[in-house]
Amino acid sequence: MRSFASDNYSGVHPEVMDAIMQANKDHMSSYGADPVSAEAVELFREHFGKDAKVFFLGTGTATNTLILKHLTRSWNSIICSECAHITVDECGSCEAVAGLKLVHAETLNGKIQVDALEPLFAQVGDVHRSQPAVISITQNTELGTLYSVEEIRALCDFAHGRGLVVHMDGARIANAAAALGVSLREMTVDCGVDVLSFGGTKNGCMCAEAAVFINSDLGKDFEYVRKQGMQLVSKMRYVGAQFKALFTDDLWKRNAEHSNSMAAKLAELAGRIDGVRITRPVEANGVFAIIPESVTAAMQSAFPFYVWDHTTGEVRWMTSWSTTDKDIEDFCAELSRLMGEA
Amino acid sequence: MRSFASDNYSGVHPEVMDAIMQANKDHMSSYGADPVSAEAVELFREHFGKDAKVFFLGTGTATNTLILKHLTRSWNSIICSECAHITVDECGSCEAVAGLKLVHAETLNGKIQVDALEPLFAQVGDVHRSQPAVISITQNTELGTLYSVEEIRALCDFAHGRGLVVHMDGARIANAAAALGVSLREMTVDCGVDVLSFGGTKNGCMCAEAAVFINSDLGKDFEYVRKQGMQLVSKMRYVGAQFKALFTDDLWKRNAEHSNSMAAKLAELAGRIDGVRITRPVEANGVFAIIPESVTAAMQSAFPFYVWDHTTGEVRWMTSWSTTDKDIEDFCAELSRLMGEA
Amino acid sequence: MRSFASDNYSGVHPEVMDAIMQANKDHMSSYGADPVSAEAVELFREHFGKDAKVFFLGTGTATNTLILKHLTRSWNSIICSECAHITVDECGSCEAVAGLKLVHAETLNGKIQVDALEPLFAQVGDVHRSQPAVISITQNTELGTLYSVEEIRALCDFAHGRGLVVHMDGARIANAAAALGVSLREMTVDCGVDVLSFGGTKNGCMCAEAAVFINSDLGKDFEYVRKQGMQLVSKMRYVGAQFKALFTDDLWKRNAEHSNSMAAKLAELAGRIDGVRITRPVEANGVFAIIPESVTAAMQSAFPFYVWDHTTGEVRWMTSWSTTDKDIEDFCAELSRLMGEA
Amino acid sequence: MRSFASDNYSGVHPEVMDAIMQANKDHMSSYGADPVSAEAVELFREHFGKDAKVFFLGTGTATNTLILKHLTRSWNSIICSECAHITVDECGSCEAVAGLKLVHAETLNGKIQVDALEPLFAQVGDVHRSQPAVISITQNTELGTLYSVEEIRALCDFAHGRGLVVHMDGARIANAAAALGVSLREMTVDCGVDVLSFGGTKNGCMCAEAAVFINSDLGKDFEYVRKQGMQLVSKMRYVGAQFKALFTDDLWKRNAEHSNSMAAKLAELAGRIDGVRITRPVEANGVFAIIPESVTAAMQSAFPFYVWDHTTGEVRWMTSWSTTDKDIEDFCAELSRLMGEA
Repeated sequence: MRSFASDNYSGVHPEVMDAIMQANKDHMSSYGADPVSAEAVELFREHFGKDAKVFFLGTGTATNTLILKHLTRSWNSIICSECAHITVDECGSCEAVAGLKLVHAETLNGKIQVDALEPLFAQVGDVHRSQPAVISITQNTELGTLYSVEEIRALCDFAHGRGLVVHMDGARIANAAAALGVSLREMTVDCGVDVLSFGGTKNGCMCAEAAVFINSDLGKDFEYVRKQGMQLVSKMRYVGAQFKALFTDDLWKRNAEHSNSMAAKLAELAGRIDGVRITRPVEANGVFAIIPESVTAAMQSAFPFYVWDHTTGEVRWMTSWSTTDKDIEDFCAELSRLMGEA
Repeated sequence: MRSFASDNYSGVHPEVMDAIMQANKDHMSSYGADPVSAEAVELFREHFGKDAKVFFLGTGTATNTLILKHLTRSWNSIICSECAHITVDECGSCEAVAGLKLVHAETLNGKIQVDALEPLFAQVGDVHRSQPAVISITQNTELGTLYSVEEIRALCDFAHGRGLVVHMDGARIANAAAALGVSLREMTVDCGVDVLSFGGTKNGCMCAEAAVFINSDLGKDFEYVRKQGMQLVSKMRYVGAQFKALFTDDLWKRNAEHSNSMAAKLAELAGRIDGVRITRPVEANGVFAIIPESVTAAMQSAFPFYVWDHTTGEVRWMTSWSTTDKDIEDFCAELSRLMGEA
Repeated sequence: MRSFASDNYSGVHPEVMDAIMQANKDHMSSYGADPVSAEAVELFREHFGKDAKVFFLGTGTATNTLILKHLTRSWNSIICSECAHITVDECGSCEAVAGLKLVHAETLNGKIQVDALEPLFAQVGDVHRSQPAVISITQNTELGTLYSVEEIRALCDFAHGRGLVVHMDGARIANAAAALGVSLREMTVDCGVDVLSFGGTKNGCMCAEAAVFINSDLGKDFEYVRKQGMQLVSKMRYVGAQFKALFTDDLWKRNAEHSNSMAAKLAELAGRIDGVRITRPVEANGVFAIIPESVTAAMQSAFPFYVWDHTTGEVRWMTSWSTTDKDIEDFCAELSRLMGEA
Repeated sequence: MRSFASDNYSGVHPEVMDAIMQANKDHMSSYGADPVSAEAVELFREHFGKDAKVFFLGTGTATNTLILKHLTRSWNSIICSECAHITVDECGSCEAVAGLKLVHAETLNGKIQVDALEPLFAQVGDVHRSQPAVISITQNTELGTLYSVEEIRALCDFAHGRGLVVHMDGARIANAAAALGVSLREMTVDCGVDVLSFGGTKNGCMCAEAAVFINSDLGKDFEYVRKQGMQLVSKMRYVGAQFKALFTDDLWKRNAEHSNSMAAKLAELAGRIDGVRITRPVEANGVFAIIPESVTAAMQSAFPFYVWDHTTGEVRWMTSWSTTDKDIEDFCAELSRLMGEA
């Protein structure tokens, strides 16, 4: 199968797999007290600050949910976009597992608009209302768009001015940094982001996510939340090994640049086909388009992908580290053929 | 103090107080196993069906939250309006206490539009999405408007056609029935409403709310949820007594008709004052208006009321069973005076 | 009916009812911002310290559960006795509503033994274990026994030495103070108790419980937890009025002394009957006894009471402010008669 | 490092690692819709019945917690031993994440005694009590002991007779089946076990646990709970691959037999050393012993292991698929040397 459904249809990058195998010797302490995990944590700290508190987890859903739980008390709310993964795509994990109240901010192309946040603070101190404590942004967004460094900084400044903290859902953070041409640090630490969900899985890992408390005070006691949150993997060394690989010779960036360039190519080639309309700015590794419904079904059986919006028929095509030029060409050839028939 | 802040600024109606005193003799079984509560349950059944399961609780927040918890499994969602009390005004009770996912439907004047519900069902069966299980409507709405009997029936038909059930938040249900000129049954049972939060407190009680499972199968085991939900009052006879009073000689209706008529009068008199704009249809016992911000503050110190929307300056004036003609006249005189100065 | 089932089978004391009626005039601010509630809070502060944070709630279950939730983070545990109301008699409220982990300490006659607590601290800091944060004691205990002032102080000292805080479930705190012949303050503030569930209902109120944060820092933000916890009664003045009555002319103490003396009398008279064995120290207003099973059923139909332990047949007889000498005499006469036949 | 701390200090068995690498090609559907996972599910069904519903998860804590959540409503309780992993070693996951009430049954050597369960049912139907719904047993137990097939059947019969279901925490189920000399089916399906947490990780996998609903009706909708429970790994094929390896040429059994035999050897050799007292029946791959406290510390620095009971100084030595004869011999030589000095 060749697919544009999600970056998680891809396998594990060979350098990551190699690191996993290298870690497979001898006995090692479990639950993260092993030397491989310790090395990986240090690599994270090179990017996110030497005091950063770093915890490895198994899924992005868990990383987001447990961080947000840890940053709040039960009467707080979390401001996010109405298309945020945490509110739409995690089967109510935030609410059911962590009791969180998510409040939707006004957005444009999936990005929270700092100028429209004020009304959400009209009833601070009113006991009948959940009290805002966190702004959670997704970088790059669920719609394949990017916050600029300046936009992130403006959101952080606004949040800090109100006593809130900022969480970044970085399921595809590597793609974002590569696309913006900035370091991981410039897009996070330097903007004032407090806590980060760092996604390794979509970037070529097998199963590797990290909660990074850049503001390390906020990470105090998170080890209990991770354990209780059912995410303390016993043979942690294999997660550590994956991250070691990602941060060796900038594999994270190589993978991201590749997938971003594949998306650009796909948007360009597909966009030229008559009747295909690219619907969103293509800024990272996702392409959104509207094509005729009949074509959608036929294309999906050849190259799986998702319908994003069942009302409009908008579809989403994701590329990954493993997408090839040939994949793009084959896909566009088939799309062109079907559009011709449509 | 005379106030238009909320119907709960009123005291207890004398007939209700009398019933409470009548119940204060002898020993009686606690936790609802007393004869007074049993009588009150029977009175509810006269309105909502002889098989209805009826449970008394202490607050409206509890009644809503615990009913909705009981109607769902953790992966379900509840469709409500974006101004529903359950999502806006209960400090995250649904989420924090019951783990519920609330999803906002499109509304007009606080009323869910049945024609706009379809898109919320686009991803039924997708494991990443919360699965809709309940439509929750407020009658009369938080904006003082009313669903017609036909509109309620249409929402129930839609819900049942999708395998969902309908919950009505009836914090002011007496006002609604009185305003529509229908019986409690015509507006609920006969429309297909499955479960009702029946509000007694705002209608002249001291502290009396009820969960009414019209569809009695849905109420199975709710006694455990009420106890666990910290709402099983030990000396229940005093709650039962309040409801007995409400259902004696239609006190519920007399109270509702009075407060509705006071709101109509208020809207009429205030609406005539230059510069006062009534902003919503006045259909029950709430009046919404826009007046100059400077006038708002001065008026509030004389007659407390709430600013509803801090962005627009819209205010809310509520009437109750205890509002008098003189209250209205005094209020409008003062408003007129201040508007003249403004 | 005359009953020994529970102190909550009693009605409302006339002085309390009177206070409720006195409060029933005019409009007043809702949700506790009324002058009656404010006065009641001040009366609490006379006993529990001028900085104490005091919140009124509707049920004892809620008071316990919400206090304990507020004192902990999700990874904490609460140490209590294995017969504590919070672990046995609240249908899992602590766990289901607040996610709390209750750990049972070794007890004697319902009282936690401070000398046996050490092993519960063996794995402090181990991420796999819930971390103890609170010791919760019930005074008087569920078995009708009393902690002495010295025992309470020893538990508080132990707790504070470990960084824990102490919660007292005072559903029957008035009985305890009266029985020990100490003031409310001597038994709580002066011993180092941090937070108290103060029970008014069993002491002659209709529905009045209070969360008293003697250590006021611990009460910060509890107003949100109360609202979210579905316990913010709108017409709060009627709860405030009940407490005003209790603290006027020491009604709390008069009621407690009476019910304690009734229990003493019952234990004495019943204890003289052949075949009746009093099983626990009778230190407040509860009497535990073993009588033949056949007698139990016959007695229950005349004077309702509960079987406490279905394994041993132990029964519980509770007295209250409304128990009369005649109640005791009639009960013992009937018991004597049935025992003679048995 | 060579360790006896836990079977999870071991690495991944080469045959499992090989299977992981084999799965690393091409694009595959994510979230379990891939052919590798499908094959693995079929292999499970060969053991646990063709209708069994099988779900893969990342940790044992999650598998236990989410199964138990799915088997209960909020007012239910779960009966387990006081040393069960779910109540002692998961940092309150059951309570905090799933709101579960765990009730401890009487046990002997970690095994629930069916004859002592009756009193836990004394108050079925009482709204103040959590209602028992599940018996959860651990096989082999946390104390290294085994339920016989007959004992499991007796517990299942008892449970089913009361309308309860039986959950088996099989974190080390392979060791149990191998030790008893029975098939996986004989120890579960044939005894009436309803749902199983099947542990792969300790048996030589990297990170592979499964929820197996033998009683498939009970597994309905569990896919939502898994997703919401933050356990739906995106690149599921790599979990499926691990299980494929375990069930190929009975790797699960070979690994289990090996580790069991290592424990037997360790118990025998260590038991011969003067001053070493083996404290529990050695029935699977765990050895419990008491040695002088000074020796414990010295031994731990050479071969990490855990102190099980800080009160008595009892220690636990676990063996695994990777434990070698030389490990045992080296360990015992060192122990012997230190005991001689002690």
